[in-house]
Amino acid sequence: MTDMGQPIDYNTAPIRLGMVGGGEGAFIGTVHRYAARLDGEYRLIAGALSSDPERAKASGAALGLDPARTYADFRVMARRERRLKDGIEAVTIVTPNHMHFPVAKAFLKAGIHVICDKPMVASSREARALRKLVEVSGALFACTYNYSGYPMVRQAREMVAAGEIGAIRVVQVEYLQDWLTEPIEASGQKQAEWRMDPARSGGAGAIGDIGTHAFQLATFVTGLEPVELSADLAAFVEGRRVDDNAQVMLRFAGGARGMLWASQVAPGNENGLKLRVYGARGGLEWSQEDPNRLWVTRYGEPKRLISRGGAGAGAAAQRITRIPAGHPEGFLEAFANIYAEVARAIRARRAGKAVDPAVLFPGIEDGARGVAFIEACLRSSRAKGRWVPI
Amino acid sequence: MTDMGQPIDYNTAPIRLGMVGGGEGAFIGTVHRYAARLDGEYRLIAGALSSDPERAKASGAALGLDPARTYADFRVMARRERRLKDGIEAVTIVTPNHMHFPVAKAFLKAGIHVICDKPMVASSREARALRKLVEVSGALFACTYNYSGYPMVRQAREMVAAGEIGAIRVVQVEYLQDWLTEPIEASGQKQAEWRMDPARSGGAGAIGDIGTHAFQLATFVTGLEPVELSADLAAFVEGRRVDDNAQVMLRFAGGARGMLWASQVAPGNENGLKLRVYGARGGLEWSQEDPNRLWVTRYGEPKRLISRGGAGAGAAAQRITRIPAGHPEGFLEAFANIYAEVARAIRARRAGKAVDPAVLFPGIEDGARGVAFIEACLRSSRAKGRWVPI
Amino acid sequence: MTDMGQPIDYNTAPIRLGMVGGGEGAFIGTVHRYAARLDGEYRLIAGALSSDPERAKASGAALGLDPARTYADFRVMARRERRLKDGIEAVTIVTPNHMHFPVAKAFLKAGIHVICDKPMVASSREARALRKLVEVSGALFACTYNYSGYPMVRQAREMVAAGEIGAIRVVQVEYLQDWLTEPIEASGQKQAEWRMDPARSGGAGAIGDIGTHAFQLATFVTGLEPVELSADLAAFVEGRRVDDNAQVMLRFAGGARGMLWASQVAPGNENGLKLRVYGARGGLEWSQEDPNRLWVTRYGEPKRLISRGGAGAGAAAQRITRIPAGHPEGFLEAFANIYAEVARAIRARRAGKAVDPAVLFPGIEDGARGVAFIEACLRSSRAKGRWVPI
Amino acid sequence: MTDMGQPIDYNTAPIRLGMVGGGEGAFIGTVHRYAARLDGEYRLIAGALSSDPERAKASGAALGLDPARTYADFRVMARRERRLKDGIEAVTIVTPNHMHFPVAKAFLKAGIHVICDKPMVASSREARALRKLVEVSGALFACTYNYSGYPMVRQAREMVAAGEIGAIRVVQVEYLQDWLTEPIEASGQKQAEWRMDPARSGGAGAIGDIGTHAFQLATFVTGLEPVELSADLAAFVEGRRVDDNAQVMLRFAGGARGMLWASQVAPGNENGLKLRVYGARGGLEWSQEDPNRLWVTRYGEPKRLISRGGAGAGAAAQRITRIPAGHPEGFLEAFANIYAEVARAIRARRAGKAVDPAVLFPGIEDGARGVAFIEACLRSSRAKGRWVPI
Repeated sequence: MTDMGQPIDYNTAPIRLGMVGGGEGAFIGTVHRYAARLDGEYRLIAGALSSDPERAKASGAALGLDPARTYADFRVMARRERRLKDGIEAVTIVTPNHMHFPVAKAFLKAGIHVICDKPMVASSREARALRKLVEVSGALFACTYNYSGYPMVRQAREMVAAGEIGAIRVVQVEYLQDWLTEPIEASGQKQAEWRMDPARSGGAGAIGDIGTHAFQLATFVTGLEPVELSADLAAFVEGRRVDDNAQVMLRFAGGARGMLWASQVAPGNENGLKLRVYGARGGLEWSQEDPNRLWVTRYGEPKRLISRGGAGAGAAAQRITRIPAGHPEGFLEAFANIYAEVARAIRARRAGKAVDPAVLFPGIEDGARGVAFIEACLRSSRAKGRWVPI
Repeated sequence: MTDMGQPIDYNTAPIRLGMVGGGEGAFIGTVHRYAARLDGEYRLIAGALSSDPERAKASGAALGLDPARTYADFRVMARRERRLKDGIEAVTIVTPNHMHFPVAKAFLKAGIHVICDKPMVASSREARALRKLVEVSGALFACTYNYSGYPMVRQAREMVAAGEIGAIRVVQVEYLQDWLTEPIEASGQKQAEWRMDPARSGGAGAIGDIGTHAFQLATFVTGLEPVELSADLAAFVEGRRVDDNAQVMLRFAGGARGMLWASQVAPGNENGLKLRVYGARGGLEWSQEDPNRLWVTRYGEPKRLISRGGAGAGAAAQRITRIPAGHPEGFLEAFANIYAEVARAIRARRAGKAVDPAVLFPGIEDGARGVAFIEACLRSSRAKGRWVPI
Repeated sequence: MTDMGQPIDYNTAPIRLGMVGGGEGAFIGTVHRYAARLDGEYRLIAGALSSDPERAKASGAALGLDPARTYADFRVMARRERRLKDGIEAVTIVTPNHMHFPVAKAFLKAGIHVICDKPMVASSREARALRKLVEVSGALFACTYNYSGYPMVRQAREMVAAGEIGAIRVVQVEYLQDWLTEPIEASGQKQAEWRMDPARSGGAGAIGDIGTHAFQLATFVTGLEPVELSADLAAFVEGRRVDDNAQVMLRFAGGARGMLWASQVAPGNENGLKLRVYGARGGLEWSQEDPNRLWVTRYGEPKRLISRGGAGAGAAAQRITRIPAGHPEGFLEAFANIYAEVARAIRARRAGKAVDPAVLFPGIEDGARGVAFIEACLRSSRAKGRWVPI
Repeated sequence: MTDMGQPIDYNTAPIRLGMVGGGEGAFIGTVHRYAARLDGEYRLIAGALSSDPERAKASGAALGLDPARTYADFRVMARRERRLKDGIEAVTIVTPNHMHFPVAKAFLKAGIHVICDKPMVASSREARALRKLVEVSGALFACTYNYSGYPMVRQAREMVAAGEIGAIRVVQVEYLQDWLTEPIEASGQKQAEWRMDPARSGGAGAIGDIGTHAFQLATFVTGLEPVELSADLAAFVEGRRVDDNAQVMLRFAGGARGMLWASQVAPGNENGLKLRVYGARGGLEWSQEDPNRLWVTRYGEPKRLISRGGAGAGAAAQRITRIPAGHPEGFLEAFANIYAEVARAIRARRAGKAVDPAVLFPGIEDGARGVAFIEACLRSSRAKGRWVPI
């Protein structure tokens, strides 16, 4: 076995973490806990795991929380934890989307760092309010656009920034799933139900749920400023009230063009997030279902396959790599990398030091841009694909 | 070695073939000759291989043509071959695009079957005129959208028609190359030079050269009627006067949506034509660079990989398959399938019989639709992506 | 996002874990800690992390262990932890190979469950002694052949057992790396140094380090009894004293044949463990570098691609699946599955219940067979490939 | 479309070709005819297509041969064609294997060039006799180990010879099919019937039919001299009298090791010929089912993917490349390359010139070595895997 890249630190004082949402039966809360646990950098010690008091209590017990730190109301939790000597330093928000804003507000006001699931909030108005709160609070804010936690995504970003593929011309991103091919929201599937309900999802379907991930990935890797878009959203399943298929054409500052396709009705695709970037001197291709590899072509040379931990992988990828090349790291590790990055930032704050500039996690701006993207898509699509600014 | 699918017929009387264009140094003429030769179904016996008399003569000699059947003028060729007892039965047109129309006209008027390279003609007006000529002449007309000659493309078409994937919702097609990443037309590369010259290419760059192939493939496989489109064409290389990257959103009759992306500036892509079709019950994926395989998913079941000649391949693919599964057939075999299909039709005509309905090759309608598609793309792009009818 | 397969339990009383070996700078100890931490099922509370007292102390501190539970001597640790009211319930052994036996012995005698890295011990004699100790102690014993923790490996095993591919005829397994292509052991690379030293590795190079993994995987999936083998071991790097390339032909009870190839000098291969199994009715193919997918062919039907969490995945895979299809799980998750399975067994013991028969982890027999395999390979190779019993 | 590599010559005087065997219903004769026809370099004008006079006549007619040049007896054909002014210059032998020797003998004695299917003859004794005949006759002799006609196989060979991967250490080759998984020879499948009959196949099953291809490919690419082998042949299908699965360990002059696996009972494999070569400085991987690409790794650098006609492809591949990168060439094109190479040699002979040393086709030595390989495998397997010289 080869030497591993970057050893992960062990530390005598794990970060004290709380969670809002994520009670029994929830999906994404479980994923956040895996991610928080992997490196031993966090200890979950408090939670308002459900808005239902009974369920909140039972969920806390199942997770081994002290009953005194199991809350039924997130506002009470924020206030109380703030005053405790060993109160939580950070909170994870994994509630339904429409609750992100009030919960984040409560904890930011308490000076507690926030790790918030995406999409950050329901409107650009809320996003602006939240931005102000973050500035005032001095707390850290992370928005878990988790795909930016893959080492080879960092590798791609680093190569683009280094000019490896020249000035970017075309950005192609797609995110394909098939689990909404049939109207399962009508038969009580919970994950489908709230996503397909305009009231709880905010009017956006696939474009909000997965399109935002694709959009964030594209901007994260390329560093390009999106300027305007033309969208065509469709709902193919009878009776569905939000889009399940979204097609978008993009224009970036500097002239680059792009296409984004997000679909949840593409049979044979499980979680097919794929990014391709082409510049004047080369191209890059990465696929989330094969996350440990990055295709890189310098124009006029054979294609090269760079693997996580392998030859050709640079510093940006190595510093968030846990195990050697050929030993696949997956979705949870990438998610954990977001947590690990936030932990590094929190530890720097604890120590009164500046955060290492290499530390990288999606924050308030990524969250705000995601919301703006969704709004622009809805606007353009309703105007039959008119180009609209983002 | 397993039994092969469909044996190709050998026949005592090969079809007498002529060629216009395709003299020494030309590319696509060579490909047509490989295709015509593979099955032994044609014998090339006459040609107006170049508009330059010296080059026409030399090219004919190099191909072993009788000097008496080597012409400097295609009109003379059409007239004379018509009167010969053993005159050509069919002619292949591989001239620069703007000459397709007058040449086709001359041979159709002589009652000679025409096999014409794509794009068929320069405008919808010419397309209409040609359609009339074909009807009047009674001759066969084929337009070599060669990718429809791949057995697994036929397989996909057959499965769609059989309802295997249900009503189609999304059609995604792309055709990527990288050979125009740099301004090679400026340094005298011939293939680049005429393609990037608006006068000779008709104002369309990538969208005409390869976008039409992608468009034809999508409609050939799905059988859907394209209704309107929104296009964003770009020329990324400085000084280039036609598009080298084309992004198009499509709408089909019945509500299906599509995206088409054609690029000649995507480093790392050689000839990346790829089609994906998703319906209410399943999905299909095919890639030209891996042409012997077709991915098929019925929603709720594992993905299946159907291979040319292998289990699951149906009649439409088997009848144009030459060798067993696992023995790759490629671009030339697919191109030869167009020739073989035309040969079957010509032989039926010779015998005074109806053409077997299984025989399938792109004809005047495919050619006309390709021209209409290019025109619509140029119109939409000039109107900043306005949706326009096709 | 689709529903996940099998939710992992959270529990109020994590299992109390100790570790021997795995101090700062060690590789595999880190991996074991990731694996133990992922599900929250273990808490590391004691360790004899190094035979060097200073390093043991520092390593314990870095991991946040109570200094009173940080030992310099594993024998002291075993004795003392046995007597503590909250003493460790299980110990992980991640020392150099030659120490596995004495450490395992000490803890088994103390009645503490043992999780031991592979290869289990240095000889079949030691293996027999250990087997007796396990029987007498009543403690659980796990040998971390971690590749058996991949869900799709379980899927393959389940399908074979269900007769999906018929009676097995051919088993092909390979494990390829390239990190010993050059004599890095001579330049002080630690991982290479002890592995290439016959004294510390036990005389086996690649065959012991990775060949045993391949062998265990093949027998785990097929359930076949290996009977005899013919081996050809080679050391290609000048001055190397143990094999870096091993080729083995295998015969199984019932007549199946196999080949095993293990190499650490195959440039372009990072961790290429791959298993292919063919029977009278079908075939299976799985590769560790693409671990979330399993190719399955029923003879006469198209190949199917079964994905972890997706359609076609059965109960054996689902119960150790954490996240939905399309969200890659990797090496650490598979490693953690071994820990999770052991945890389920330990919890059953705690509760005085029988272990669920679905719980599956490699144990003393897998360990013993691995040792016997290495011995047989060395014997055969020294006898120029003579067939020898395993 | 990019420029193509090496244009194939057209010539006014195609080579006059005869064929023995390959009448209606035969498989490999058809393949030879495709290969001979593709480039227009041959014209088939005479044949003894079947030992059955009626079938010989009908087959000749179907192929459009002059009845006067359709023979019932190959000896008569050899004698007569020799005396004709426009008699055949070369003959293709596609009879059942046991007839290769007498037919080759007859035509060599007539001074006619021979293109003979593999395996060349039935024994090393016959191979020696044939070698002498070739020397005496002065005629060219080609043995159609067709896989050596793939451009990327030539590329691999060229890179090995140039020292790109350093001194070779390990050669791994496999050839997998599944069409004999069930006893189809018992139900009258013709291709299976003669192959599984020891009398007609010479006692070797899979090892002779496909193992020899694998062996030739390995030696062709590496240039290594095989010295000894240890084989384990098995017949898995009940009642089968020759091997359907063959496992071989190889040793080469200079110390390199190899494994060869040939199977016709591996469900899910259609024509899986795959070669991997590893040296002190790098590695190469090629697969027949993806023939237009070659994986190349220089140790310590990322893997590179070299494509036929693309960047990094050298002279040896380019000179037998017909169409540009990304336009797949397949099995027939590779087969045709053997014919094209022989044509170049014949034209040189016609012109009284030396053959260009770049011209490369398998000849009498490849044929002889294949026969010796089969004999050694049978000998070793009967001696339970004893190492025997080749």
